[in-house]
Amino acid sequence: MEALKNKIIEEGVVLSDQVLKVDAFLNHQIDPRLMQQIGSAFAELFKDQGITKIVTIEASGIAPSIMAGLELGVPVIFARKYQSLTLTDNLLVSKVFSFTKQTESTIAVSAKHLLASDRVLLIDDFLANGRAAHGLIDLIKQSGATIVGIGVVIEKSFQKGREELDEQGYWVESLARIKSLEGGKVEFLE
Amino acid sequence: MEALKNKIIEEGVVLSDQVLKVDAFLNHQIDPRLMQQIGSAFAELFKDQGITKIVTIEASGIAPSIMAGLELGVPVIFARKYQSLTLTDNLLVSKVFSFTKQTESTIAVSAKHLLASDRVLLIDDFLANGRAAHGLIDLIKQSGATIVGIGVVIEKSFQKGREELDEQGYWVESLARIKSLEGGKVEFLE
Repeated sequence: MEALKNKIIEEGVVLSDQVLKVDAFLNHQIDPRLMQQIGSAFAELFKDQGITKIVTIEASGIAPSIMAGLELGVPVIFARKYQSLTLTDNLLVSKVFSFTKQTESTIAVSAKHLLASDRVLLIDDFLANGRAAHGLIDLIKQSGATIVGIGVVIEKSFQKGREELDEQGYWVESLARIKSLEGGKVEFLE
Repeated sequence: MEALKNKIIEEGVVLSDQVLKVDAFLNHQIDPRLMQQIGSAFAELFKDQGITKIVTIEASGIAPSIMAGLELGVPVIFARKYQSLTLTDNLLVSKVFSFTKQTESTIAVSAKHLLASDRVLLIDDFLANGRAAHGLIDLIKQSGATIVGIGVVIEKSFQKGREELDEQGYWVESLARIKSLEGGKVEFLE
């Protein structure tokens, strides 16, 4: 997706060979117009798949998901990383280890909102080692719902997440695939 | 806002005299079409105020904010509740105590994205005791930006948050104002 790649080049900051900071438009400050374009791109890719629900994870997955949900006409569920007093009953729970934060989180979705009959599009802002994706897949499987596809905004293709999901047979669509961040330079996989 | 009030009546769950659960459409599962209507309502109320940025807090503030930002043509910044390795430099920091979760969180915004010249619309999903709003106000003041107004999706008018913000001279617009949750029944303030 050209608009996204241009934004990464213009406003992304390469912090190391592993870390790309996109807090100017995706995961701290958010560009709503770009999110709309991203939502449309996901909707276009998955529009014929009978998607009934989008599942993502707080917080940075919400903006692209809500735009895709608007376009596809389906609700969005975001998995919560911490349990709150108003989200206690009948939870599907999984664990996610974050390489960025070096912490393990519990993630949860209310079983009430995710049905065995649902056809789910999973969306996340980043795919790197794939830990968040696997946590979400685990939650969705517990509900019995079908995972139709996985939409990723930015994929770090040099980390193992994408390859593992491919091997497991998931349909993954990443709008920007990054081949390398070496030398402080973003190189895309074409 | 009628569509929102109807949704609260139809899908909200009164857990106690103090707690309204809206995880079916606002803070766990999200209704994108309703978020679009909410975003349009905020945009309509504040469109002539020269807003340059929307500031909210993760996670439930993001969906209504992104829709308002799309309509107003301005970026959205969401304050983060936890610091991550990719969000470390030059932070404005404040503390928020959550009555719901009975925990204190550190919230942070990158100083780089919030300028003294900014005219800010603050948006949040709930206004109850006003702790989150005061934390966000504190962050925005540290940047020197102007707080033009505060947009709230659901206000629990029987708690002290709204009254305090009114007394402090803030322009608060709440799309649904709840007078009481007593007896398991949602009563709106007209």
